[in-house]
Amino acid sequence: MRVAVFAGDGIGPEVTAEAVRVLQALDLPGLDLIEGDVGGAAYRKHGHPLPAETLEIARSCQAILFGAVGDFSLDHLERALRPEQAVLGLRKELGLFANLRPATVFKGLEDLTTLRPEVAAEIDLLIVRELNGDVYFGEKGTRTLEDGRRQGWDMMSYAEDEVRRIAHTGFTAAMGRSRKLCSVDKANVLETSQLWRDVVIEVAKEYPEVELSHMYVDNAAMQLVKNPGQFDVIVTGNLFGDILSDQASMCVGSIGLLASASLAEGTYGLYEPIHGSAPDIAGKGLANPMATILSAAMLLRHSFGLEEQAARIEAAVSTALARGVRGGDLGGSAGTREIGDAVLAAL
Amino acid sequence: MRVAVFAGDGIGPEVTAEAVRVLQALDLPGLDLIEGDVGGAAYRKHGHPLPAETLEIARSCQAILFGAVGDFSLDHLERALRPEQAVLGLRKELGLFANLRPATVFKGLEDLTTLRPEVAAEIDLLIVRELNGDVYFGEKGTRTLEDGRRQGWDMMSYAEDEVRRIAHTGFTAAMGRSRKLCSVDKANVLETSQLWRDVVIEVAKEYPEVELSHMYVDNAAMQLVKNPGQFDVIVTGNLFGDILSDQASMCVGSIGLLASASLAEGTYGLYEPIHGSAPDIAGKGLANPMATILSAAMLLRHSFGLEEQAARIEAAVSTALARGVRGGDLGGSAGTREIGDAVLAAL
Ligand SMILES: CC(C)[C@H](C(=O)O)[C@@H](O)C(=O)O
Ligand SMILES: CC(C)[C@H](C(=O)O)[C@@H](O)C(=O)O
Repeated sequence: MRVAVFAGDGIGPEVTAEAVRVLQALDLPGLDLIEGDVGGAAYRKHGHPLPAETLEIARSCQAILFGAVGDFSLDHLERALRPEQAVLGLRKELGLFANLRPATVFKGLEDLTTLRPEVAAEIDLLIVRELNGDVYFGEKGTRTLEDGRRQGWDMMSYAEDEVRRIAHTGFTAAMGRSRKLCSVDKANVLETSQLWRDVVIEVAKEYPEVELSHMYVDNAAMQLVKNPGQFDVIVTGNLFGDILSDQASMCVGSIGLLASASLAEGTYGLYEPIHGSAPDIAGKGLANPMATILSAAMLLRHSFGLEEQAARIEAAVSTALARGVRGGDLGGSAGTREIGDAVLAAL
Repeated sequence: MRVAVFAGDGIGPEVTAEAVRVLQALDLPGLDLIEGDVGGAAYRKHGHPLPAETLEIARSCQAILFGAVGDFSLDHLERALRPEQAVLGLRKELGLFANLRPATVFKGLEDLTTLRPEVAAEIDLLIVRELNGDVYFGEKGTRTLEDGRRQGWDMMSYAEDEVRRIAHTGFTAAMGRSRKLCSVDKANVLETSQLWRDVVIEVAKEYPEVELSHMYVDNAAMQLVKNPGQFDVIVTGNLFGDILSDQASMCVGSIGLLASASLAEGTYGLYEPIHGSAPDIAGKGLANPMATILSAAMLLRHSFGLEEQAARIEAAVSTALARGVRGGDLGGSAGTREIGDAVLAAL
């Protein structure tokens, strides 16, 4: 069991340390944790946010536990050297094409969102976002047009196999939940979306039990405000998924609790909290490590099939919450280490 | 004063009729209202959602009062013939490059949104969306790659003059409000966004009193949930503006009250409610015409400089609301005509 641990920037190291303690407490036979540098931390040490050494470690492992990257003081660098490029690089190099972002309101925490509690209580959705294509990875550049004007451009595209693959992920996820899948696109404007929609409809034939619907992205952004409880699984492209998954996460209110998985074909995956590097509170022992601990649970489940151990971690987090242990993000005052201790105690 | 009236599909004709009654009640000297066909209605009559006749009427006028387009029964048509193409065609043909979408919670209507009333009460923002560029109007198509796979593609781009023009609109709007402008992009991934950001920063030099900030689109979608009251004016591109403006509208809760303007250089503009054609209630006299009536007010203000008359209409709508006149969308039972009557009475 080889797991890469990439803690990254800001609060990344603190929250990752607690998740590592939880993993170690499980006494998993043969668990090997290998640390590597990513993000701004890696840039400072190696001159690149995703050094070759790090990529090699990733390739030698079966899964990655990831903290957070991001460092405003490196914003002046050319884009290819900025911390966030580590995320994009890992996704592409390792073929992490399926981002699973569950958004569920934890019982008793309905008060934390800006949505009315009765609206928030209904939220239990999973966003399946494609991560390897779309306008993210197309050709792009800045050019000077014939008439002398500068123009920035980015090619958006999806090929049928890219859509088919993520559609299968979406339908499979829906089969394991309430069998409703909503595919989000902008087919009234984009050819990329029209192909997306056509392929999703083709794939649907293999999942006759799943009820498929289609929604334009602008309407989806509206419906996530109006009635987020209507959604079960949403499948969408890289760009729309970026926007909608962040919107959905904030609807839940407790962003310090949300974990995510980025999966390759097979069992390989990268697991990370959805929150960022939070430089304002970094190094102070104030960050809530629960989302990272829950990411470690996802890691055990998806990459190693250790359902029981994953469920144990999740139950321990719930117990700690039920006992009133709350980080600052949840309106409480428990520190990083204290929360880690509480989860370990509950374990 | 030549105003084109394009009522369109679904509830479009009903709500437009009430706005026309309000305009006529003002006894504006020389007001000439010229009707034209758009959307599904135009397709059925002329075989095209934006017939040449309609475009000619638009060109012969100084402003357009627009209802709504959209008709699910025409969804099988090739994209170029679908009702929504009328909107895209008018924007492009008439150079309507600046979409202004105010989102404000009306006093006394804080209860209509799914947001907590105290969060909703703070919302008073204006989204300035570019309408003539971006991935909407770039080259696009579906092709078969060398290896036989089908691929859908769309070119996203912005040239510096396109960004400069909408940036000026954003800064000017901010100068007339609380002098805060937030530019939304995805400069950590897109070259189009990097150029966007560079140009907005250049233009900012001409508006030293405006406090400019930049936000990634995923974060903006989050912040609109977490704390929508933080925004004053948001300026963004066509695609991100489509998503964020719909999200912001729904935060307000009373979508039947929100008007919008799409402006060309000079005073030409198209004015429309932000709601759609609502085929489910079309023809039943149930639709709330207030958003269209408020669009007519925007028309008088922006295209004809009739600030006083515009304010009169807005005050009349507020009075009707204060008197308890509520359409079904606001939890009331007043019909289209009844609401029109109430506004006229208040006028
Ligand atoms: C950092 C950035 C490139 C990234 C993305 O846009 O995918 C982030 O927003 C995310 O969602 O993981
Ligand atoms: C109908 C559609 C093409 C249009 C758009 O995407 O611009 C609509 O959503 C809007 O916002 O006016």
